[in-house]
Amino acid sequence: MFKINDNYLKLPGSYLFSTIAKKVAAYIEANPDAKIIRLGIGDVTQPIAPAIIEKLHGAVDEMGHAETFHGYAPDLGYAFLRDTIAKNDYQDRGCDISSDEIFVSDGAKCDCSNIQEIFSLDNKIAVCDPVYPVYVDSNVMAGRAGDYDAATERFTNVIYMPCTAENNFTPELPKETPDLIYLCFPNNPTGAMVSKAELQKWVDYANKVGAIILYDAAYEAYISEKDIPHSIYECEGARTCAIEMRSFSKNAGFTGMRLGFTVIPKDIKSGDVTLHSLWARRHGTKYNGAPYIIQRAGEAVYSPEGKAQLKEQVAYYMKNAKVIYDGLKGAGYTVSGGVNAPYIWLKTPGNMTSWEFFDHLLADANVVGTPGSGFGPSGEGYFRLTAFGTYENTVEAVERIKKL
Amino acid sequence: MFKINDNYLKLPGSYLFSTIAKKVAAYIEANPDAKIIRLGIGDVTQPIAPAIIEKLHGAVDEMGHAETFHGYAPDLGYAFLRDTIAKNDYQDRGCDISSDEIFVSDGAKCDCSNIQEIFSLDNKIAVCDPVYPVYVDSNVMAGRAGDYDAATERFTNVIYMPCTAENNFTPELPKETPDLIYLCFPNNPTGAMVSKAELQKWVDYANKVGAIILYDAAYEAYISEKDIPHSIYECEGARTCAIEMRSFSKNAGFTGMRLGFTVIPKDIKSGDVTLHSLWARRHGTKYNGAPYIIQRAGEAVYSPEGKAQLKEQVAYYMKNAKVIYDGLKGAGYTVSGGVNAPYIWLKTPGNMTSWEFFDHLLADANVVGTPGSGFGPSGEGYFRLTAFGTYENTVEAVERIKKL
Repeated sequence: MFKINDNYLKLPGSYLFSTIAKKVAAYIEANPDAKIIRLGIGDVTQPIAPAIIEKLHGAVDEMGHAETFHGYAPDLGYAFLRDTIAKNDYQDRGCDISSDEIFVSDGAKCDCSNIQEIFSLDNKIAVCDPVYPVYVDSNVMAGRAGDYDAATERFTNVIYMPCTAENNFTPELPKETPDLIYLCFPNNPTGAMVSKAELQKWVDYANKVGAIILYDAAYEAYISEKDIPHSIYECEGARTCAIEMRSFSKNAGFTGMRLGFTVIPKDIKSGDVTLHSLWARRHGTKYNGAPYIIQRAGEAVYSPEGKAQLKEQVAYYMKNAKVIYDGLKGAGYTVSGGVNAPYIWLKTPGNMTSWEFFDHLLADANVVGTPGSGFGPSGEGYFRLTAFGTYENTVEAVERIKKL
Repeated sequence: MFKINDNYLKLPGSYLFSTIAKKVAAYIEANPDAKIIRLGIGDVTQPIAPAIIEKLHGAVDEMGHAETFHGYAPDLGYAFLRDTIAKNDYQDRGCDISSDEIFVSDGAKCDCSNIQEIFSLDNKIAVCDPVYPVYVDSNVMAGRAGDYDAATERFTNVIYMPCTAENNFTPELPKETPDLIYLCFPNNPTGAMVSKAELQKWVDYANKVGAIILYDAAYEAYISEKDIPHSIYECEGARTCAIEMRSFSKNAGFTGMRLGFTVIPKDIKSGDVTLHSLWARRHGTKYNGAPYIIQRAGEAVYSPEGKAQLKEQVAYYMKNAKVIYDGLKGAGYTVSGGVNAPYIWLKTPGNMTSWEFFDHLLADANVVGTPGSGFGPSGEGYFRLTAFGTYENTVEAVERIKKL
């Protein structure tokens, strides 16, 4: 008689964004005339840039002719894309990463959730609190997180690193030694950032205790200040302890196109086994590559035209971030983030819980945001708004919130 | 100190097709003038059909304008595609499957390897021998297969069901009761097929012992004879025991486009937990949907023009299958498959092992095939050729093999 993986039953409720989608759908059904503005899920609204569209059309035409048709992609991605990534994102920044250390995938969410599979189930993870739910949930499903304790709203076998106003929303080194450390900077959901010196501390720590840092840099394109690392490989020693995940979703609007990559330096070893070889094996066995036309689109992201067009796109969203930040601050809210990240993190007014504020905002301003408590217990009393709406909607949403 | 998932170290050697690729690359480097014909890996050669190319261009244009841009896809796939699949592949064939039981994905390989994650690690799997390596390898990596025994070339905790000339390459019900049964018809690698009555026996058996059948129907489009089931849901009772995986790779040439789907009827339960809800949770947490433009391309597969063009494409490959089958049979080889499947399964001549024949064919005919032993010990002494080459290359390859 078959049995299910009952680790799944340890997950409390449904995935955060599914819950939000259901609540919004129910509200719309009851209020069909409401003009909802969505600043909740981190989905983009600007169309794919013209240079990328042009490349996509070209690649589609290639697929239509036998001479230029592309079947199965190379396991780890096309060389044209891996070479381009290695040069632009790493070598040009002085990071020692070669193209055969880059694994092209269908997105950072998949990579962030799959990466734990190459590690022992005995490993203990450390995560920020609040945190992107996928890191913890994927470990719960694998059986690495222990049980859910409803009293603390935490899993018993996970090390939580609170990120609060007191520590400027950046974690301190954990007291208990973890094996795997998830870090995300610029941070989702708080929009916080670390300096290079601060990140170096984490790299030194990981190398000292033999931990692996799983570094989610999906929001790298939004860094606007100096001395903020764009990659963890800017830190000395990262080649022996850090895996970096990147996405095309936020810098190029690929949320509906699906492209990302993971960097695993060949220097990370357990005995004489490289993590690189394990991930390559996983890619070869459990994955079959991103579509050719999408990989070509990814290449266009790094063309001169693509870069120029995407710089404008990022600037568009960062203007939104400023509208939200300044508007809410002016209205008396306590806000952070929004400077090196497309997320604004705000304290809910009065003694409202995060979900109370969600309901209030949905019902009274018809604005959808994300409850901070959905990201972890330390997110309670906070709320995330994204800069990924249209400018017009963002201005309108802020006006509505101000009037509450 | 982090530890790796050492189940990975139990995998013998590298993934079959990676090994073949390396051998071929080495041969080409040593013999740069050789005109290699590849009938090894099951990759297609015909371009994407015009009706699909047209749809792709349209979808690309949509992505380039804010009004028609598509961001994150619905977790389980767009309704336009799921509805189309449910109608065409199931309801029109009299199978009771609804669109919300269909999960769109980036391919059958991913689904076949990921599906085991929703089951307990205590479950015991049964596989055909020979078999598509992904079923076993994904279970090895998860820790469900036991240890590799070099003497038997088998994993200690897997039930192998030999498919040999004696049983017409179709498995018998296993003596030991499995929890999960992987079946693939039309079969990769042998090209064998089961009748509906025979498949019904498996469904009845699974329901009786409480096992789940994981049914890989990736080659369904190649069925040419009557009384051969196109879906396991043509069998009575399959809704309580069978999960079906489908691909767009072979019926529509999507190997480089990446699209597939898995069907999980809501009637399959463990206690009051549906497998449907577990797979939905996995999709929502560890996956982020197939690209919008690719899902639109999938929709075009079912349009009247798409259907007509793809019928021709399948006929093209099946003509190749006949060329190989008839040619090798005429030359004195013992061959099977190739009638309801794009694979021809042949007995190696003399006492050659599968890899000896591979090397012989590569060196003396410059033809690449797949060694039967790569699919399991019962495949030793056999060899797989695919019908997915061009017609000209297929004819030429058969001529060369005849001359050996």
